[in-house]
Amino acid sequence: MKTQIEVARSGKVTSQMRRIAKDEGLDPEYIRDGLASGTIVIPANANRTKTKLVGIGKGLRTKVNANIGTSVDHINLSQEIKKLGAAIEAGTDTIMDLSTGGDLSQIQKTILKASSVPVGTVPIYEAAVNVAKKKGAITKMTEEDIFGTIESQIKNGVDFLTIHCGVTLETLDRIKREGRLLDIVSRGAAFLVTWMIYNKKENLLYEGFDRLLDLVHKFDVTLSLGDGLRPGSLADSTDRAQIQELILLGELASRAKAKGVQVMIEGPGHIPINEIESNVVLQKKLTNEAPFYVLGPLVTDVAPGYDHIVAAIGGALAASYGADFLCYVTPSEHLRLPTISDVKEGVIATRIAAHAADIAKGVKGAMDWDIALSRARKKRDWKRQIELALEGERPRKFRKESHSRVTDVCTMCGKYCAIKLVEDFFKKR
Amino acid sequence: MKTQIEVARSGKVTSQMRRIAKDEGLDPEYIRDGLASGTIVIPANANRTKTKLVGIGKGLRTKVNANIGTSVDHINLSQEIKKLGAAIEAGTDTIMDLSTGGDLSQIQKTILKASSVPVGTVPIYEAAVNVAKKKGAITKMTEEDIFGTIESQIKNGVDFLTIHCGVTLETLDRIKREGRLLDIVSRGAAFLVTWMIYNKKENLLYEGFDRLLDLVHKFDVTLSLGDGLRPGSLADSTDRAQIQELILLGELASRAKAKGVQVMIEGPGHIPINEIESNVVLQKKLTNEAPFYVLGPLVTDVAPGYDHIVAAIGGALAASYGADFLCYVTPSEHLRLPTISDVKEGVIATRIAAHAADIAKGVKGAMDWDIALSRARKKRDWKRQIELALEGERPRKFRKESHSRVTDVCTMCGKYCAIKLVEDFFKKR
Repeated sequence: MKTQIEVARSGKVTSQMRRIAKDEGLDPEYIRDGLASGTIVIPANANRTKTKLVGIGKGLRTKVNANIGTSVDHINLSQEIKKLGAAIEAGTDTIMDLSTGGDLSQIQKTILKASSVPVGTVPIYEAAVNVAKKKGAITKMTEEDIFGTIESQIKNGVDFLTIHCGVTLETLDRIKREGRLLDIVSRGAAFLVTWMIYNKKENLLYEGFDRLLDLVHKFDVTLSLGDGLRPGSLADSTDRAQIQELILLGELASRAKAKGVQVMIEGPGHIPINEIESNVVLQKKLTNEAPFYVLGPLVTDVAPGYDHIVAAIGGALAASYGADFLCYVTPSEHLRLPTISDVKEGVIATRIAAHAADIAKGVKGAMDWDIALSRARKKRDWKRQIELALEGERPRKFRKESHSRVTDVCTMCGKYCAIKLVEDFFKKR
Repeated sequence: MKTQIEVARSGKVTSQMRRIAKDEGLDPEYIRDGLASGTIVIPANANRTKTKLVGIGKGLRTKVNANIGTSVDHINLSQEIKKLGAAIEAGTDTIMDLSTGGDLSQIQKTILKASSVPVGTVPIYEAAVNVAKKKGAITKMTEEDIFGTIESQIKNGVDFLTIHCGVTLETLDRIKREGRLLDIVSRGAAFLVTWMIYNKKENLLYEGFDRLLDLVHKFDVTLSLGDGLRPGSLADSTDRAQIQELILLGELASRAKAKGVQVMIEGPGHIPINEIESNVVLQKKLTNEAPFYVLGPLVTDVAPGYDHIVAAIGGALAASYGADFLCYVTPSEHLRLPTISDVKEGVIATRIAAHAADIAKGVKGAMDWDIALSRARKKRDWKRQIELALEGERPRKFRKESHSRVTDVCTMCGKYCAIKLVEDFFKKR
């Protein structure tokens, strides 16, 4: 089977490319070209057919991912399925199943079946958790354990896989030499580091990268090269370990593309506002413009409980500079596994960031939505404003709870509504 | 009486300047110099003494303002006092009483008495609303009506006044010539335009600017030159009318400073991310670096119900480029008069933006807070994390609701907490 990259390189425009082109209002040839050069990915496991197709990359709308999944402390699959529904209803473009508690393969199959959008996973979770269960310690993981898990997840139909290949003896050494406040905050990286240190061996996903490429190539699964060394505190942002890992990811991305494998790059993390542009520029340069998938970035460490707002600030900025894909952050980040309502809040905040960025980076048609809503606002057409709102339930509720004596305005200004006061004057021109 | 600018220019460092210097961790001479050159203001009515002193401007922490006040549809003074309390508890630096319903002078006095932070107002509201009540139409307002109101508000002890002097026949003409989607969204401007058009006269606050300066000079009240022509839709951002008004405000700011009057400049509004830097640069250049007080900016029009997040994105960016003072936006913006909980949410979102910007623009000591919280996070010291949190109630609640079997981690990762997994390895170095 040829992967989408390979088909694109042969010059052929597929129905999938046409579908994405239509959704984005772009020329199918632009999508083909982006796939061929690796600036666009369409994560879609060839083994899974009923999923909505989503394009991620240069010139396309910024996309949003929502993480769901059990943890060892909260194993409730029906609740995770409700989170999936809430995330999709709130408008997420993809979801990731990050489960670490319960029967992970069964949970994954259920989520894959229930999801109408592409699904990603981090296979090292399932591998490490199962090894810990069966053999007593993560350190006893073998190559067969991790690659066997990857193979079974691919067969299950997962559309994109986060793989932490950049956590190597070299990058770890850079952390030790420079020193960090919060050394490692990535769960995947922590599993691998535990294994590497105990076994005094190189990261088996880095060593086995060619094997990985062969596996994902089979079903055209998209690789998402994870940033295991992302900073978990502003104090560690844009340090040598982070950039060293990015250099490695750039090299691996080239190898993936050369083998016809779709690839995107994951990015930080906790980054102050004034370093976000440089982080995006670096990622684009060092990876030949592979799609950039960022978690946050979080622009301050001090607001647990409100990290969806912190991440919306960073995500809007990152995407306006060229990041392509925003992983949501919920109000529960750093505190607990998110609830259903946290999932909704997280998706909404991230969609706001993505859309604001799309206007800034000139994504085709992005401003039309704002213009339509502003026109409804001018006419004080509340029904239309709510219909057009990014999320309609809350504005509807707010309107219902607060009545103005003059019905076409709101209770902020009442009859002194500025738009209404000057309307006649401006109509006369 | 000499105003603070005048004292600063005479080379004297006052106890007020020392107070601000101590709060900001800066040299008192820096504060004196900023006051003298007009890059820093300390809004403090000489007639009001028990208020906390707040410095706003270059090199200082970005400050946050919360708007409260009645509207014609919601006249409930005790609720507004509760909003005042909620805003101060959430950490606002100043408040503005924007009341337009009820006995406005009485409401203002009550709020001034209850507020421990500087209070600002928009006197055209009281003038226009009272004229409408007494004479039947805003158009019947006289110079004595508006200047009488300003004088009485100054005597009440108001610390800073928003005055819309830039809404002139010239700037209005520019709106008409260029065309706008949402012509005018400022209530103050709408009152003035109504009056100007009907009476075929120039803005009486622009014409009477010297009289205004004499009045505010008496009690060293700070002027906040309002942006009555701020865009109310992304479609109108950074247009000729907006910039024309900014040019006028720059001229007026020079006249104010020349007369020893403290002055800041208000800014938009609805501005896309990619135009925010230019807006800040322009404001700084055209007004000789007068402190910049921005409302939002809102980086998209499509998220009513979530505009506190939209404004946090814009505010963080504006302040990181040099804006000095952020007016909060609540989730109720564009929908209703905010509730007490909206006020709290608005202040928190705006403080997040202000702090993230302070890190980016290198405000002295800003990062120390993030480092302290990150250290507590590394130690999984939850008590300390909550103590240090920008808002502690929500993280405390989230922790209480979600227990991990392993007590020093959270339910997101449970025993697979990355920080904990790799702790021993990094301790050994």
